Amino acid sequence: MSEEHKDWAAVPGGITAPQGFKAAGVVAQVRKKGRRDLALICSEVPAVAAGLFTRNLVKAAPVILSQEHLAGGRAQAIVVNSGIANAYMGAQGMADARRMASVTAESLGVPVADVVVASTGVIGEPLPIAKIEKGIRDAAVNLTRDGGGDAAEAIMTTDTALKEYALRFNPDDGAGPAVTIGGIAKGSGMIHPNMATMLSFLTTDAVIDRVALDAALRYAADRSYNAVTIDGDTSTNDMVVILANGLAGNAPITADSAGFEAFRDALKAVCVELAKMIAHDGEGATKYMEVQVRGAQNEQGALQIARTIASSNLVKAALFGEDANWGRIITAAGYSGVLFDPERVTIWIGDLKMADGGTGLDFDEERAKEILEGREIEISLDLHQGDAGGVAWGCDLSYDYVRINANYRT
Amino acid sequence: MSEEHKDWAAVPGGITAPQGFKAAGVVAQVRKKGRRDLALICSEVPAVAAGLFTRNLVKAAPVILSQEHLAGGRAQAIVVNSGIANAYMGAQGMADARRMASVTAESLGVPVADVVVASTGVIGEPLPIAKIEKGIRDAAVNLTRDGGGDAAEAIMTTDTALKEYALRFNPDDGAGPAVTIGGIAKGSGMIHPNMATMLSFLTTDAVIDRVALDAALRYAADRSYNAVTIDGDTSTNDMVVILANGLAGNAPITADSAGFEAFRDALKAVCVELAKMIAHDGEGATKYMEVQVRGAQNEQGALQIARTIASSNLVKAALFGEDANWGRIITAAGYSGVLFDPERVTIWIGDLKMADGGTGLDFDEERAKEILEGREIEISLDLHQGDAGGVAWGCDLSYDYVRINANYRT
Repeated sequence: MSEEHKDWAAVPGGITAPQGFKAAGVVAQVRKKGRRDLALICSEVPAVAAGLFTRNLVKAAPVILSQEHLAGGRAQAIVVNSGIANAYMGAQGMADARRMASVTAESLGVPVADVVVASTGVIGEPLPIAKIEKGIRDAAVNLTRDGGGDAAEAIMTTDTALKEYALRFNPDDGAGPAVTIGGIAKGSGMIHPNMATMLSFLTTDAVIDRVALDAALRYAADRSYNAVTIDGDTSTNDMVVILANGLAGNAPITADSAGFEAFRDALKAVCVELAKMIAHDGEGATKYMEVQVRGAQNEQGALQIARTIASSNLVKAALFGEDANWGRIITAAGYSGVLFDPERVTIWIGDLKMADGGTGLDFDEERAKEILEGREIEISLDLHQGDAGGVAWGCDLSYDYVRINANYRT
Repeated sequence: MSEEHKDWAAVPGGITAPQGFKAAGVVAQVRKKGRRDLALICSEVPAVAAGLFTRNLVKAAPVILSQEHLAGGRAQAIVVNSGIANAYMGAQGMADARRMASVTAESLGVPVADVVVASTGVIGEPLPIAKIEKGIRDAAVNLTRDGGGDAAEAIMTTDTALKEYALRFNPDDGAGPAVTIGGIAKGSGMIHPNMATMLSFLTTDAVIDRVALDAALRYAADRSYNAVTIDGDTSTNDMVVILANGLAGNAPITADSAGFEAFRDALKAVCVELAKMIAHDGEGATKYMEVQVRGAQNEQGALQIARTIASSNLVKAALFGEDANWGRIITAAGYSGVLFDPERVTIWIGDLKMADGGTGLDFDEERAKEILEGREIEISLDLHQGDAGGVAWGCDLSYDYVRINANYRT
């Protein structure tokens, strides 16, 4: 998506690409395998901050605490552990989350209310808090300007690849200084279009006020993290947080300023890249799917249909089996809850038209097989009922998804 | 459930157990394997009729036609083919569905508007209408008073067992004649709590008016077919239809009469038995799950939570893996959309208490393993927030579910 915009350039460094951010990822031994499992991200100066959190009624302690801390619209550091979710742990869970914040604050010399805390992993088990404290102190003395990759690695659970992305652009049409936005994400299982859908931490050196930052984050997340689905479950721990430290020195961005749209679209581009990485890395996935819906009456409906198709177990299993079962695609669209006229829909798998005007078409089964043997499958629908469109991403449902999730806890 | 009521007795015969119903199941060769694939059910006399149909926006031609025919509240015959769904076939689909109705009407000497038509199978392929016509004529001359089992067999697709049930009870507290209710169902894949969820055909010899029959069917279906979930997909073809031919000669049942509740509860019992058979026979299932929610503020909320848990891919995969992952159970409850206080919930797997008062409990892992190695798993939650309860049924997510659905079309 960023390729479409000449003014955007992907840059290395992920979350530490923007000015003034350092990060570290260390082995705190929360997880058994000696992998990095604790990430620390810190801005040199206090940053404007916004966050989106799981809509699950059951919220993990770090989610509750971070919502509280972000109420002020400001933060300076983010601490994250993988391995244990610190969810459904009662008073102990809140105490442990507060302890993570206070040790981070103390180690970095920042106010405790400026620390965002996140956890991901198994629900209902206690954090090994002594190990985590030690991990935080280790990380604090190991923060570097190129630690983004280590931090991205430390937040992984069943992810098979680390997910980071950054881009640089100019919000003032080339007149002022460039702004950089970076991000990391973890995804894999339990990803579903219902904000927040996973862990993602974003950094930028933009000068932007809180209202604009919050609006841009919601816009970007709705069209990225909320449009990627792996298994339809919404976790207790999901969050997306962005820190904007203002060190780029651009003309201040507000919701009404000229630079707002450029910032919002650039942020969306970063989030879309990370969302696609999540879909590519769905638990046990052998195929990546992009579902494009166009010709809808409004964007919300288009997104809803795209997400419902990408979420259908039957569509996902057909993809795994390389079966051109377009009937399941129109069926999923039909139960999406969006009103449309099924008789006017055109359906393609790749570039092959499968159905049109209320009936299936004869199609080249050989060509269908060729398309479906690929690793990346594009499903598209034109509703022919308006000008709006939406995209969602997902993956197939494989034997390995079942295997991974049959034995996660043990 | 019927066991709780002394006045109810299970009887053999399924859909042909009530007086005045005949049925047949024949090989029309819609399916390749020479299996029975066409069912015909007929009442000696015109019957009061009610139906519930898929809420999918994409409705198969037989669904549209049967809704039209049942608008009058009366029917005498039901014709069903398996193998091809006659869905998304445009004008040809409607013509074929009408043809099925007219050949049935002519063969049986009943008005065409008194014929209900149903199909199940692959979407987007044309019915072999000549074969189906021949099948209908074969079935019409083979209708018998013990043909219920053959009809039950003929509506199966990926089902591995035929599903029929019947019971006899007395709506007048023993004062009047007994009434019989029978039913057949097909389920397996594409079952989800969103009426209608599968094919089920019910017969009764009760004297009952249409308003009461309709109300009883909605009540029963909400607590049975709408509470069984296999994969979350809602088909284009689902329907539940009941015919009441009045031959029992009981005191007429109306929505206000003394016999209404007895009838409604008996109908629910038949539907629950069939729904449980569907859950037992979920595609690729190795485990059957019953989710009981009690202590809810209202029945709707309890049902919604139970269904969401039974639908969760992560809960289902954990069940397949015999993993006591109660965290996924409370997570699913949390995203069910129902408001409750997670800190007050008690969770059991079998008779083993796993979580209570907002935290997990130490539990006997050996005992958990024993319970989870069983074929039937009971998950229960007490919300401690009211007196209402609800039950849902489902199955695990296995490698075989993926295998079956990866290659359904081919």
